[in-house]
Amino acid sequence: MDATRTLPDPEVGRLLVSCEDGPGIVAAISGFLHARGANIVQSDQQTTDPVGGRFFLRIVFRMPELPQWLPALEEEFAAEVAERFAMSFRMRAASVPTRVALFVSRYDHCLLDLLWRWRRGELLVDVVQVVSNHPDLQKEVASFDVPYAHIPVTRDTKPEAERQQAELLEGRVDLVVLARYMQVLTGGFLERIGVPAINIHHSFLPAFAGAGPYEQAKTRGVKLVGATAHYVTEDLDEGPIIEQDVARVSHRDRVADITRRGADVERNVLARAVTWHCEDRVLLDGHSTIVF
Amino acid sequence: MDATRTLPDPEVGRLLVSCEDGPGIVAAISGFLHARGANIVQSDQQTTDPVGGRFFLRIVFRMPELPQWLPALEEEFAAEVAERFAMSFRMRAASVPTRVALFVSRYDHCLLDLLWRWRRGELLVDVVQVVSNHPDLQKEVASFDVPYAHIPVTRDTKPEAERQQAELLEGRVDLVVLARYMQVLTGGFLERIGVPAINIHHSFLPAFAGAGPYEQAKTRGVKLVGATAHYVTEDLDEGPIIEQDVARVSHRDRVADITRRGADVERNVLARAVTWHCEDRVLLDGHSTIVF
Amino acid sequence: MDATRTLPDPEVGRLLVSCEDGPGIVAAISGFLHARGANIVQSDQQTTDPVGGRFFLRIVFRMPELPQWLPALEEEFAAEVAERFAMSFRMRAASVPTRVALFVSRYDHCLLDLLWRWRRGELLVDVVQVVSNHPDLQKEVASFDVPYAHIPVTRDTKPEAERQQAELLEGRVDLVVLARYMQVLTGGFLERIGVPAINIHHSFLPAFAGAGPYEQAKTRGVKLVGATAHYVTEDLDEGPIIEQDVARVSHRDRVADITRRGADVERNVLARAVTWHCEDRVLLDGHSTIVF
Amino acid sequence: MDATRTLPDPEVGRLLVSCEDGPGIVAAISGFLHARGANIVQSDQQTTDPVGGRFFLRIVFRMPELPQWLPALEEEFAAEVAERFAMSFRMRAASVPTRVALFVSRYDHCLLDLLWRWRRGELLVDVVQVVSNHPDLQKEVASFDVPYAHIPVTRDTKPEAERQQAELLEGRVDLVVLARYMQVLTGGFLERIGVPAINIHHSFLPAFAGAGPYEQAKTRGVKLVGATAHYVTEDLDEGPIIEQDVARVSHRDRVADITRRGADVERNVLARAVTWHCEDRVLLDGHSTIVF
Repeated sequence: MDATRTLPDPEVGRLLVSCEDGPGIVAAISGFLHARGANIVQSDQQTTDPVGGRFFLRIVFRMPELPQWLPALEEEFAAEVAERFAMSFRMRAASVPTRVALFVSRYDHCLLDLLWRWRRGELLVDVVQVVSNHPDLQKEVASFDVPYAHIPVTRDTKPEAERQQAELLEGRVDLVVLARYMQVLTGGFLERIGVPAINIHHSFLPAFAGAGPYEQAKTRGVKLVGATAHYVTEDLDEGPIIEQDVARVSHRDRVADITRRGADVERNVLARAVTWHCEDRVLLDGHSTIVF
Repeated sequence: MDATRTLPDPEVGRLLVSCEDGPGIVAAISGFLHARGANIVQSDQQTTDPVGGRFFLRIVFRMPELPQWLPALEEEFAAEVAERFAMSFRMRAASVPTRVALFVSRYDHCLLDLLWRWRRGELLVDVVQVVSNHPDLQKEVASFDVPYAHIPVTRDTKPEAERQQAELLEGRVDLVVLARYMQVLTGGFLERIGVPAINIHHSFLPAFAGAGPYEQAKTRGVKLVGATAHYVTEDLDEGPIIEQDVARVSHRDRVADITRRGADVERNVLARAVTWHCEDRVLLDGHSTIVF
Repeated sequence: MDATRTLPDPEVGRLLVSCEDGPGIVAAISGFLHARGANIVQSDQQTTDPVGGRFFLRIVFRMPELPQWLPALEEEFAAEVAERFAMSFRMRAASVPTRVALFVSRYDHCLLDLLWRWRRGELLVDVVQVVSNHPDLQKEVASFDVPYAHIPVTRDTKPEAERQQAELLEGRVDLVVLARYMQVLTGGFLERIGVPAINIHHSFLPAFAGAGPYEQAKTRGVKLVGATAHYVTEDLDEGPIIEQDVARVSHRDRVADITRRGADVERNVLARAVTWHCEDRVLLDGHSTIVF
Repeated sequence: MDATRTLPDPEVGRLLVSCEDGPGIVAAISGFLHARGANIVQSDQQTTDPVGGRFFLRIVFRMPELPQWLPALEEEFAAEVAERFAMSFRMRAASVPTRVALFVSRYDHCLLDLLWRWRRGELLVDVVQVVSNHPDLQKEVASFDVPYAHIPVTRDTKPEAERQQAELLEGRVDLVVLARYMQVLTGGFLERIGVPAINIHHSFLPAFAGAGPYEQAKTRGVKLVGATAHYVTEDLDEGPIIEQDVARVSHRDRVADITRRGADVERNVLARAVTWHCEDRVLLDGHSTIVF
């Protein structure tokens, strides 16, 4: 049972905008929505610099019979507002789940946490596929009624493996989540898939980038370990950061303890990042993110 | 020296609005500002309930020669926008410091932290007066060049003391901050002063309301102690909460240790609450607050 | 797979002691252990007051062939040391799992988190039984190969239900964990079971004791919500606190959001409390706890 | 006034021990103390590895007329216990303040926080000297009745400046604290002074080591910024870490805001590190620390 489940309201829509700042943008957008009977429920706007900065906006609006009007609304917004201000924008119904593929290797904590949040209705997604380079978590995933594709990856088979992965997912997903997937995705794969990918890195980036961060943390004697969720780019560990958090460790903790402590942070940070992404809260600002 | 001091931009203004929700409010406001050449730099809007809720908005805008236009802008906004939607609103130049009176008894940590943040330019206020029922902190306050009014308060002299306090402050301050002032302000005093008052309560309200919260915390064996900054109302410890935070304590901590640990939380929480109030981030929503 | 699993060392033992403070206690205990070839690996000692306080000690020691010597060691310690200082003590092999019964109603988050930590080897317990007053989580629990006893409880059937529960568990468990079990256990039941019980309360006690804490938190407009793990006593919500934590909430969060946020804190706090209890880190000091 | 001040008990002593682990160490130490009428009030012991690890111990004890017996006690301990186990140890009266020199450049927040904690009796130190390469904070420091040595440092005058500093401090201090002192101390200086030095680094080391960490944090778009207190070694930013903490930042924060946020973390982290050092809670374990 889940007492906290609340059905998403089908008449609620979300609009995300980014463009060069200039006068009249909010007035144009809000005027556009008002003229079509849409009521703004929540909005956040940020200009990175009062002079010559970039403009970022997230609007949650409510509009009677949104589902049937949405395509026209989007088209009209493009023509009447977006073009004029050279905007990038995204408009969609808040009630439509984001279609997600979860990639995992052998650690189950991030994967299970996302699956569990999804099942209890906390995360508005459709998990359409789990992809793994190992067979270990097959049974676990089956209990959530999600298909599990075991696609082994070696140095030699990587191109072929990525081809299989891409074929499996192309057009079926809006987001790829690397829930402790220990393989690097190539730029070619990301381009072909054409949807964003979120990775959880088990360190407080940029500290301890690379392999074995918890071992590094122990060696260096740090008092906090962290995790970082970021968009995947071709530059390993360098993509725009969405969320980070830390946990306290002490001299008493061995690497195994630190790893466990870190696992708790990883699953929380990744869950927050995925939730925010699916709620359209994250906008890209060059190499960093705006999180509304 | 303070490398972080940045002079406030005199052309930046802030507008706060609350009213019953309804269609077209954002469009009306942003249209109004756009028509006068004001550019919205940042905005946050929240409607408490999509149906029949209340509307809250904070806008930071930039307008050439704001200081000279502000009075007219305010008047026109009242006539053209606010009346139509039955709004409460506040409009002011972001560069004008909030005039503050600090009340204190004998604990110095909250007072000194605010004075120090003010001196280093972190807090855009004018501390016009310190009021205390004890003489202890006189010398300390003098080093900040702030007048110190020592007005003793006993049960018998309270009405007379409050009369003196009111006379001293009336029309001179925009905010009263109780920085560990151990006397209760009467409703009559608050009404006469006519400006908001913020208090720091040394517990995680509503737990341990009343006297000796750290002693209570020790007795109950809690693992975290907290502090709460809230607006002062006639109902002691019941005013709308602005900010709260906690610190970890353990069985090793005696009441004195907990009190010290708590003092660190108190000064941080109060500083955040005062900063947010002075940046017009806090709006009242019945008995609670919206903090943008 | 679980890379963090480390097999418990069968030669490691733990000794917990509490008594009136007095001279020579540590010397007597460490002399006793040394004489039997036991090496102290870790120890924590705390006297609540240098004069007339109580003495608390936790020692982790390593002793060749501990399993075969433990019964004799315990007996000799009782005769040679404990009696002399009127100690309460507990001595046991660190490698022996604590036998646990998990009670749950319908919320799954605390239950699943404990089962998952157990399965991945993070929690050294044997979950011997799940008891619920509802059938909802039966299938979920079955996937962990743990027996599920569905024992409905109404006001009228409570005595009979508790009799069934006690019969089921008597002599089979070392610890009862109430993982969001929405029924109050009677003093009679606790006495009959004769083992400690840990409960997770979904508020930052003593704030918001009683029903609907997250609704209360929303109404009061608090900025943090918390959870409290405590030993169960006959006085509801008044037992010794083991662990607490909080999460930040804002005006944007509805009761459902706060409840979800709270659920994350609940499962973390309960997992820590159970872990610490099973690692013999928690000692009772009247109504509060020492957590080494 | 400071209600939390508690006079240190002159009969309380502290003993710190580190050595190779082996059987009978705790028994030998506690037997030694017991035989001399010292009662152990608190103790923490940790062996880094059950087999072949290092042994670390901190004991707080109470002994009648400690001040007059301490020199003999120390000598006997060296002869009877320390030598046998090849121990490093430190024994001292808990009531004797640590003599401290504070080094600062121009940022006042860490310096003032330490001075203020000292004045209110929170920090058991004697601040015997402030040393600065700038004159800016002279007046501020004077109000605490602490001598202020203004010793400018340029690339050319550095050897001479360090000679002056060393002459000023040699034999007068037990600890040097770099409270945002922007000059690197040479190994020669540290050796000549012969006491430990604690530095506060304004980043979450090892991330953003080097100059301008908050600028780096902004550029990289991190969601948390941190501070690190560590012992100073010849390898810049590489000394053993004593304490770390973080604060949350967002896309809204400019570098100036991040710097302020960071300053709050810096002063807290440094105050904790200095407090723990002065309470003899920190032991060195190679390149990392044990903090009891």
